[in-house]
Amino acid sequence: MNDVFTKHIMFDKEHWALCLLDQRKLPELEEYLTVTSVEEAIYAIQQMVVRGAPAIGVSAGFAAVLAARQACQQTQSDADRRESLHSLLERLACARPTAVNLTWAVQRMKTLLAANPNTSACHIPELFLEEALRMQAEDVRICQSIGHHGGALLHDGDCVLTHCNAGGLATAGYGTALGVIRGAIDQGKKISVIADETRPLLQGARLTCWELARDAIPVTLACDNACASLMQKGLVQAVVVGADRIAANGDTANKIGTFGCALLAQHFAIPFYVAAPLSTIDLTLTNGSQIPIEERPAEEVTRIFGKAAAPAGIAAYNYAFDVTSASLITAIITEVGVLRPPFTSSIAWAHTVSAKV
Amino acid sequence: MNDVFTKHIMFDKEHWALCLLDQRKLPELEEYLTVTSVEEAIYAIQQMVVRGAPAIGVSAGFAAVLAARQACQQTQSDADRRESLHSLLERLACARPTAVNLTWAVQRMKTLLAANPNTSACHIPELFLEEALRMQAEDVRICQSIGHHGGALLHDGDCVLTHCNAGGLATAGYGTALGVIRGAIDQGKKISVIADETRPLLQGARLTCWELARDAIPVTLACDNACASLMQKGLVQAVVVGADRIAANGDTANKIGTFGCALLAQHFAIPFYVAAPLSTIDLTLTNGSQIPIEERPAEEVTRIFGKAAAPAGIAAYNYAFDVTSASLITAIITEVGVLRPPFTSSIAWAHTVSAKV
Repeated sequence: MNDVFTKHIMFDKEHWALCLLDQRKLPELEEYLTVTSVEEAIYAIQQMVVRGAPAIGVSAGFAAVLAARQACQQTQSDADRRESLHSLLERLACARPTAVNLTWAVQRMKTLLAANPNTSACHIPELFLEEALRMQAEDVRICQSIGHHGGALLHDGDCVLTHCNAGGLATAGYGTALGVIRGAIDQGKKISVIADETRPLLQGARLTCWELARDAIPVTLACDNACASLMQKGLVQAVVVGADRIAANGDTANKIGTFGCALLAQHFAIPFYVAAPLSTIDLTLTNGSQIPIEERPAEEVTRIFGKAAAPAGIAAYNYAFDVTSASLITAIITEVGVLRPPFTSSIAWAHTVSAKV
Repeated sequence: MNDVFTKHIMFDKEHWALCLLDQRKLPELEEYLTVTSVEEAIYAIQQMVVRGAPAIGVSAGFAAVLAARQACQQTQSDADRRESLHSLLERLACARPTAVNLTWAVQRMKTLLAANPNTSACHIPELFLEEALRMQAEDVRICQSIGHHGGALLHDGDCVLTHCNAGGLATAGYGTALGVIRGAIDQGKKISVIADETRPLLQGARLTCWELARDAIPVTLACDNACASLMQKGLVQAVVVGADRIAANGDTANKIGTFGCALLAQHFAIPFYVAAPLSTIDLTLTNGSQIPIEERPAEEVTRIFGKAAAPAGIAAYNYAFDVTSASLITAIITEVGVLRPPFTSSIAWAHTVSAKV
């Protein structure tokens, strides 16, 4: 595994700063953005300097450290500082609506805070930092476990189509969907990849191709609209994607275009796998219709690399995600194993197993 | 109808030059390219200065005039000049492989040539020019007729999804798919449009939006991968697309991504219409598997507006077209009427009707 995929989110304790590889600038530039306040972290998440549900979760853990640091620097009582921290964490949790890992990470910090009622506000940054580093290390292990379980589902010689980037860059390292591909390769299988370019922000072209090329995994780029044609030509043996939020019944929100891929995969009888940590599953939602879908600015569609792709003033749809019905999903690959339909029971089982670990 | 859609292909007889609106530069610039030889015309067709099956056909008609002019300027015998002209026409016919209108137009000129065996080579440019102007005027009338027949299929208030640009810019004027939309509006119906952006060359974003905005037809741009999601939300009442070549059984080659739209439309029980002149139907092919599919350079996918969308050296699929099975097509809208399945018989009927006219 290439170093950069575990170092794209780094916390510099000496300066109490979060250093993020600026994914907006890849593949052209490898630049890091240094973030020293929770407001800057929120901005970085919203602007997609860092993106991908698990990576947002891990970044939010470190952003919580910055929030704790800001709160403890205020000349207030300890109770007021805790109150300030709570309010900063609330704002952080709302930075982007769809990926549940963001609220999951913030909730984990809140739980830690509640479990340490007597800790002085000035010690909370340290406490949070330990937890954030733990979350980061856990995420890599979880992805490796997803890769291990999912890798077994792929066959030697398979070509896997993936949409968006659910790789090392979307996690603390190794990746979820790309983790499955890495897992299969680690198991000695020869795997090649078709990367959907993933308009409008081109995460497939810019990030997945960059990441796979660095690991010398064979990858061919395709426009999103080529999917049906490539499947019909027999070029795709499996589809593996990540997830931003999964409802209790298995309905899965992921990058816009995932739903279409899943419908086409079903038509061509190609297995369609979702790879995600259990932290992406939102047990409070019974189905996908309850998942909030972020709408982003039309300019992300109408302008590309700063140039007008459409005449000025044209309206554009820019839903960042869509929801793939559980009925289209062959299996959900998690760190505790491969979940099969009916997902309501397999997801419930996975959480029981996880709670015991 | 806006003037520019009938003037984007113009022949300047005074200078024996073909003036083409350079569609590569839209919507940013409205520039015309002047073409004075058949080689330049071939280059313009290959580089997609002009594109869209019927527009390529009409341009090829004018390119044949340039070829005739080149042949007659050679100091040869009349028989040798005719021989030269034949060889130039052969090269023209091969400029792009998928759209049958190109070979159809060249064949029409060859037939004319054969019908005038005693005409001096120096009079052939005039003869060809009359024919090319006739083809251009016919194409506008054909599109208006397609619009009339197809417009009747749409309902007041419908939102139509279209892929690529099958508009005035893709024909001599009025358009095929956009002609159907214009036809419905001319019939007093309120119609809005969703334009797929159509990667890699963004004909939907750059051309369809530009053309519809000029005619004040409401249009919203969407990334190609949003199709399933927009259909599921109930935002699409019909899909109308053009065609580059239709086999005798109704299988239809059109811009890459059309096949996926058709499969998704079938899933959501949305009618899927192909709008095309009879000249797009290739009766020599029994089904779509025989249609040659052009592969274009990977750089059209890996680079956007001159900037790298993917790391250097990444391979990319760039099939310019795909084939939509006749079984997914609700109807083919032609100048002689709306053809319904089974298409083998309705297409045969249409050609009988057309031959009688």
